[in-house]
Amino acid sequence: MKNLLIESISKYITLNLDEENLIESFWIKKTLHKGDYLLRNGKTCRTDNFVVSGTLKAFYINSKTGKEEILYFAIENWWATDIESFQKQKPSIYNIQAIEKTELLQIHYDSFQEMLKQIPKLERFFRIILENYLSSLQRRIIEDNVLNAEQRYTNFTENYPKIVAKVPQYLIASYLGITAEFLSRIRKKT
Amino acid sequence: MKNLLIESISKYITLNLDEENLIESFWIKKTLHKGDYLLRNGKTCRTDNFVVSGTLKAFYINSKTGKEEILYFAIENWWATDIESFQKQKPSIYNIQAIEKTELLQIHYDSFQEMLKQIPKLERFFRIILENYLSSLQRRIIEDNVLNAEQRYTNFTENYPKIVAKVPQYLIASYLGITAEFLSRIRKKT
Repeated sequence: MKNLLIESISKYITLNLDEENLIESFWIKKTLHKGDYLLRNGKTCRTDNFVVSGTLKAFYINSKTGKEEILYFAIENWWATDIESFQKQKPSIYNIQAIEKTELLQIHYDSFQEMLKQIPKLERFFRIILENYLSSLQRRIIEDNVLNAEQRYTNFTENYPKIVAKVPQYLIASYLGITAEFLSRIRKKT
Repeated sequence: MKNLLIESISKYITLNLDEENLIESFWIKKTLHKGDYLLRNGKTCRTDNFVVSGTLKAFYINSKTGKEEILYFAIENWWATDIESFQKQKPSIYNIQAIEKTELLQIHYDSFQEMLKQIPKLERFFRIILENYLSSLQRRIIEDNVLNAEQRYTNFTENYPKIVAKVPQYLIASYLGITAEFLSRIRKKT
């Protein structure tokens, strides 16, 4: 059976068996338990992280309110990497933590560069998934400003049903920038 | 003399003269005058747009306040494309407008795919510039939440001195999410 990462890449580019084996050889399995940190604010993100199973939250502390703010969630088949910290090998400005037992495939920065050198067509895969992520981030910035909380929650449930099913409501409230009480009221209405 | 786009690409990948000429053949020159729209909310972004000279603003209307909100500015050597609309060929949720006379290089969606097919190593260039843009967008989301207006303005002037020099203050205030009056007070202090 193919691993989930190879499946994910194969959606966008065609790989032969040698290439699949070569790609797999660069990645290392890692298990995180609930509460384990994958990355801490101030530390450099040394690996690119593909989620095979489980759930992580990326968050930072809002200095005005002292509260945790969710930047994104990562579930199976997604990525949990601070791209700025990883790409520039400089300290991260946020945290990534497992909210349940999580299995990852990790690749170190130098191995990542080597893998792209040996299999240049992977550039296309990473270009496309970055476009997808960038699109969703841009849309989020706009929707945070133009939609009310109820519309944002409806959009979120439509776009990310798997996350809604797995993640505690108070974290989804944090992602949406509202209180857990307010989210509870919205859910009763919808 | 090489065009600015070829120079920009050559920072990340090595091109021979044939490749440079081939790349150039895919792009079309376009001039916008002050006030001209490159993209309107609801229309599909048919071209990827590289800015050779001039300045554009990407913005949307905040339905809560009725005011224009700046998503980003684009000056020479940057891109002015709604990546989600362009990549998926679906209607955009924002507008891009020239705030002074602007010279662009444009490539149509089909030509863009054809160019990548003929020169696959360009995938690397686009992957890297997407990583850069994604990094800055992610940082902006966090800094909007954790920094006060004065710190955000200081960061902006340090990171984008060329934009500060070219763009009217009221638009920079909009980008920073503050009023023009408040920005004026900050500037007197700093």
